[in-house]
Amino acid sequence: MLYPSVAWQSSGRGLLLLLTLLWTTSVARAAEQLQSPDKQLTLSVNLTTDGMPTYSLTYKGKAVLKPSQLGLELKDTPSLTSGFVQTDAVRKSIDESWNPVWGEVKTIRNHYNELALTLTQTATKRTMLVRFRLFNDGLGFRYEFPRQPELGYFVVKEEKTQFALAGDHKAFWLPGDYDTQEYETTTSKLSEVRGLMKSAITDNASQTQFSPTGLQTPLMLKSADGLYLNIHEAALVDYSTMSLDLDDKNFVLNAHLTPDAQGNKGNLQTPGTSPWRTIIVSDRAAGILESKLVLNLNEPTKYKDTSWIKPIKYVGVWWEMITGKSSWSYTNLENIKLDSLDYSTVKPNGTHAANTAHVKEYIDFAAAHKMNAVLVEGWNTGWEDWFGKHKEYVFDFVTPYPDFDIAELNRYAQSKGIKIIMHHETSGSARNYERHMEQAYQLMNKYGYNAVKSGYVGDVLPLGEYHYGQWMNNHYLYAITEAAKHRIMVNAHEAVRPTGLARTYPNLIGNESARGTEFQAFGGSRPDHCTILPFTRLIGGPMDYTPGIFEMDVSKYNPNNNSHVNSTLAQQLALYVTMYSPLQMAADLPETYNKFLDAFQFIEDVPVDWDDTRVLEAEPGDYITIARLQKGGSSWFVGSICDEQGRTSTLDFSFLPQGKKYEATIYADAPTAHYKTNPQAYTIRKLTVTSKTKLRQVCAPAGGYAVSVVAK
Amino acid sequence: MLYPSVAWQSSGRGLLLLLTLLWTTSVARAAEQLQSPDKQLTLSVNLTTDGMPTYSLTYKGKAVLKPSQLGLELKDTPSLTSGFVQTDAVRKSIDESWNPVWGEVKTIRNHYNELALTLTQTATKRTMLVRFRLFNDGLGFRYEFPRQPELGYFVVKEEKTQFALAGDHKAFWLPGDYDTQEYETTTSKLSEVRGLMKSAITDNASQTQFSPTGLQTPLMLKSADGLYLNIHEAALVDYSTMSLDLDDKNFVLNAHLTPDAQGNKGNLQTPGTSPWRTIIVSDRAAGILESKLVLNLNEPTKYKDTSWIKPIKYVGVWWEMITGKSSWSYTNLENIKLDSLDYSTVKPNGTHAANTAHVKEYIDFAAAHKMNAVLVEGWNTGWEDWFGKHKEYVFDFVTPYPDFDIAELNRYAQSKGIKIIMHHETSGSARNYERHMEQAYQLMNKYGYNAVKSGYVGDVLPLGEYHYGQWMNNHYLYAITEAAKHRIMVNAHEAVRPTGLARTYPNLIGNESARGTEFQAFGGSRPDHCTILPFTRLIGGPMDYTPGIFEMDVSKYNPNNNSHVNSTLAQQLALYVTMYSPLQMAADLPETYNKFLDAFQFIEDVPVDWDDTRVLEAEPGDYITIARLQKGGSSWFVGSICDEQGRTSTLDFSFLPQGKKYEATIYADAPTAHYKTNPQAYTIRKLTVTSKTKLRQVCAPAGGYAVSVVAK
Repeated sequence: MLYPSVAWQSSGRGLLLLLTLLWTTSVARAAEQLQSPDKQLTLSVNLTTDGMPTYSLTYKGKAVLKPSQLGLELKDTPSLTSGFVQTDAVRKSIDESWNPVWGEVKTIRNHYNELALTLTQTATKRTMLVRFRLFNDGLGFRYEFPRQPELGYFVVKEEKTQFALAGDHKAFWLPGDYDTQEYETTTSKLSEVRGLMKSAITDNASQTQFSPTGLQTPLMLKSADGLYLNIHEAALVDYSTMSLDLDDKNFVLNAHLTPDAQGNKGNLQTPGTSPWRTIIVSDRAAGILESKLVLNLNEPTKYKDTSWIKPIKYVGVWWEMITGKSSWSYTNLENIKLDSLDYSTVKPNGTHAANTAHVKEYIDFAAAHKMNAVLVEGWNTGWEDWFGKHKEYVFDFVTPYPDFDIAELNRYAQSKGIKIIMHHETSGSARNYERHMEQAYQLMNKYGYNAVKSGYVGDVLPLGEYHYGQWMNNHYLYAITEAAKHRIMVNAHEAVRPTGLARTYPNLIGNESARGTEFQAFGGSRPDHCTILPFTRLIGGPMDYTPGIFEMDVSKYNPNNNSHVNSTLAQQLALYVTMYSPLQMAADLPETYNKFLDAFQFIEDVPVDWDDTRVLEAEPGDYITIARLQKGGSSWFVGSICDEQGRTSTLDFSFLPQGKKYEATIYADAPTAHYKTNPQAYTIRKLTVTSKTKLRQVCAPAGGYAVSVVAK
Repeated sequence: MLYPSVAWQSSGRGLLLLLTLLWTTSVARAAEQLQSPDKQLTLSVNLTTDGMPTYSLTYKGKAVLKPSQLGLELKDTPSLTSGFVQTDAVRKSIDESWNPVWGEVKTIRNHYNELALTLTQTATKRTMLVRFRLFNDGLGFRYEFPRQPELGYFVVKEEKTQFALAGDHKAFWLPGDYDTQEYETTTSKLSEVRGLMKSAITDNASQTQFSPTGLQTPLMLKSADGLYLNIHEAALVDYSTMSLDLDDKNFVLNAHLTPDAQGNKGNLQTPGTSPWRTIIVSDRAAGILESKLVLNLNEPTKYKDTSWIKPIKYVGVWWEMITGKSSWSYTNLENIKLDSLDYSTVKPNGTHAANTAHVKEYIDFAAAHKMNAVLVEGWNTGWEDWFGKHKEYVFDFVTPYPDFDIAELNRYAQSKGIKIIMHHETSGSARNYERHMEQAYQLMNKYGYNAVKSGYVGDVLPLGEYHYGQWMNNHYLYAITEAAKHRIMVNAHEAVRPTGLARTYPNLIGNESARGTEFQAFGGSRPDHCTILPFTRLIGGPMDYTPGIFEMDVSKYNPNNNSHVNSTLAQQLALYVTMYSPLQMAADLPETYNKFLDAFQFIEDVPVDWDDTRVLEAEPGDYITIARLQKGGSSWFVGSICDEQGRTSTLDFSFLPQGKKYEATIYADAPTAHYKTNPQAYTIRKLTVTSKTKLRQVCAPAGGYAVSVVAK
């Protein structure tokens, strides 16, 4: 049964009369349907007899989501979960395009049908909207809380949103955690999650699980009949992060928000909204990777001038510390106090990497090999006992170690056309960072830094707040918008995983928020890791994964570190294409790259910004092949990776314009290559290709290939 | 048994050998004694047979503190409570003087004997010092944690300091609370605390009690045989506030620290110290008021230049809002969002006091009557729903309401030699304040403000932190030191009660942290309130009590407010002398003062900085008479107040230099005066006095008198 649309009236009294009328005429269930523009997706929204809103979703006639609850449980006030009547339903259709500041494609189409349902809770005289946007590639919906007399400030006890799946899908999942996503992905049926949880949880610097069936988003799912689903959220602003708690009897995913120190899950004020809850749906795995639904649900950029935001390719003083070859810290002291320690009086440890002479070597390499920038970690005082101490004043973000000549290094870098990337490790001490932020950004402006890598390793201070709670989400965005005032780009590690906010704040040039390359030096990551990340973590935004490791035997750098990088060298090249990011590191050491300059040529050539993207082959956990068109140019770049099985990829060049000839340079695994035993065996060959060319290319276990395709 | 002194050796190994030697020779109890310079106080320190340190104190041979435990319970590591042997005892004596930037006297004598005991915990190889300083007027001691291999970072579970009293003393007490001291003082025997606790706890904007026998410091005590004791702390820096939990069977006060959101009570790092624990002892009540022990235990000022710090006498746009005559807020909106509300489009409520024309009236009055400044509250946007909402972005501290012309008002004020005092109410939203602090202080510099009244009404955000926890104590000091960078003085309300820190940071010009005059408009305070505060709250530092109310019938300002100010007008004048503060408000309205300009003359004349102070009569809860010598001048000012009993004071002018004649102007209760029925009945008379004059002056119930004594 449908109610006529009721326009929100400026006079509350008028509305009240109207509502009273509606309440007295009927409290029966209402139902609305909405179709995607291509009519393949159908959304149904219902109210149960006790006024609880539910929604369900079908794709090509098949159930994607069975009736799933909507609403929020509130604290100290009646919940917004039931007792609702529908008092308005507004529909509209949008088909528009927009151009991101940076991205995988030049133009993004935003095409959806919208249904905005106004639900009124009779007993409390409160209203809540649920706004649904149905795209061809999925659904987004959010709660909206209009300004109203009976709802001003309120505290969320739990969001009661459900995603009632149609079956026991295959899931690519991480343990639900309030503090970290730096886990291996476990691939299993949902019914197997509980049994696998213990082994899925590995140690991390800060971690807080909440349930034996807790899962993180983006959650990638595949149904038995080949439907691909991805569940995440978009535009997470001033709200706590959503995880999912699996009911593994019924395969229902229940929203589970990150609490604050009191166990509250959100402090909201009207008018306000929740983030968008997103379900991407496709019968092709590639459809998930192609989706721009999360970006489309974010607001356009709030910055008038974005000319200062530039994608970056960089090397850095980093992997040598990760491997244990050298150190972040300048001394081997323990238990230091920044405000009383005079570093000029203490003995250096001799292993400090961020020293002037050594950084110049990186700058020289960067300048010689078309990099834009050099990241330097460990440049500032405090690294002696920065971690795990719950130490509030852990860094000041402005004082270099005695052997790091900040003025000279920036002068030297700029003379070579290179930027130094600032590093702000906060150790989770958020108040300390905010106290020093303005001065830190001013220092960056003074010396010409235009980008910062920030980090949040360890427990958040004050204890009780979590990395993914509202308080910290608010902090991360504060850091981004304050940086923008200084025309500074931010690459935040250990922050909350992205939700497309870089559309609105495009100086958020990167995030980590997943298991990055450093884990290859901490025991290694699974060979299929990078075939999954684009389906999970990358759904929310780019990742500073830091590929480009050419020396897979970590003991070559540090005899005490026996870790092995589970990838072939050719796969490392392919990652520059398959792992989209406007910020790409060449993570290995210049001394190593100098031994493989023919392979490094691909890293030199590969762009970090694109006009077009084609997903040519894809299956999560198995393989990905992607072709991308360079921004403002005519060259294409292809990356293909596979898991430990190896495979033969068929590269169909039909993405090229017809009738034009290109020279393809193919960086591939040698026939003898194997990620464990022979990872550095690669071949480089050139051939002429056209749109009609089809190339069969063998990929080694955990291997792949990279291709540059340049017009002749 | 005494151990020989053991110097801390730079080589840890050398020390270890020595310690091993000591451990093997004896683990029996050690004992030390220390006497005050005048030998009236004797401290004994002992180790129990299981190595628990205890201390006890006698005064003129009578027990003040019976053997009382020392130590700290730690989290996740063995506690520092027992298993100690004494490995060093260093004594020294100090007799020096120093001049405060502002104060009750020109020069303060710092005279004590010190005993620094090094205690070593055999099993853990950790050391802790207890440093005792015994003055003629009491004891201070603190824990010191030297830098050492086995103790770096540690978490305090509870401080186990005890104050084992010698009897069931009379106590002037407030309910122990992590968030507020805005309670009436209850006067009772310690054994009666438990029974009176419920009635002692009155409502406050934010309050968290912790025990049915919890008490706050400064705790004023009087023994049955007439000994006056005051227990407090000094130099509370980066540590959580100490309350006391009374064991009312044994009359032992146990230290109880304020927890953080996790229940932890302190995050410490070596080298570090606790605040000083203080016990002031005197057989005269005046001795407590004269004590400078708390100031002496604080560090000298950290500021090189203090020339910008000036005591202030001010009027303010304040009492009219407190009484309900006018409003802080500019509109009657509810539920506003600062970042989206355009105040120029909304209807003013017509009761907003901080408007340009009205503030000019205060400026005119201030200029005409020798005030230094005008406080203006409610000048900035956000007051519509600033309180009780747990709203993080509650104020921006820089945006005036449309009717407050900040540039014009500061120009106007400065043209008349008047400063406007800035107001920063934070609503407990500490992060929000810190984010805006630099801009807020810059705004103050731009317009010439040199002082700010800050406020922390309501629960601290993030929830779980308390007003008196380490996290907030760290914040208050941050606000003070950041203000100092801008040459700004701070008067912090609802912050932690002071502990003498204004010696070190003399731009901390005032604090509230107790039940101030506003409660006289919220139902009234007890008539003896101000006869107690100097013995309790003021022991830590000055209070912005805001005296000077001339209209005791609050309904004259607001017909809906029937509160009565429980004081005579003459007593209000006396408070400018009895309630020492370098920051004194004349809190009533200019329209009222204009009706009593002869009485207001005393407020005009009374200084806010002094070269000397004499406590002439004193008994907590009953009466106080104090004479003070103006800074850099020859005039004396006397204030005398009493409780609801009324009394006859004998004012002995022997504090005057011999042989000189003075004109005394005496502002006294008229014979018919009574705080309830006839509070405005006062007389003003002049007479010539010398050092030989003795004046008998009748004080009405809750009355008093004020005298200016000017050389002829």
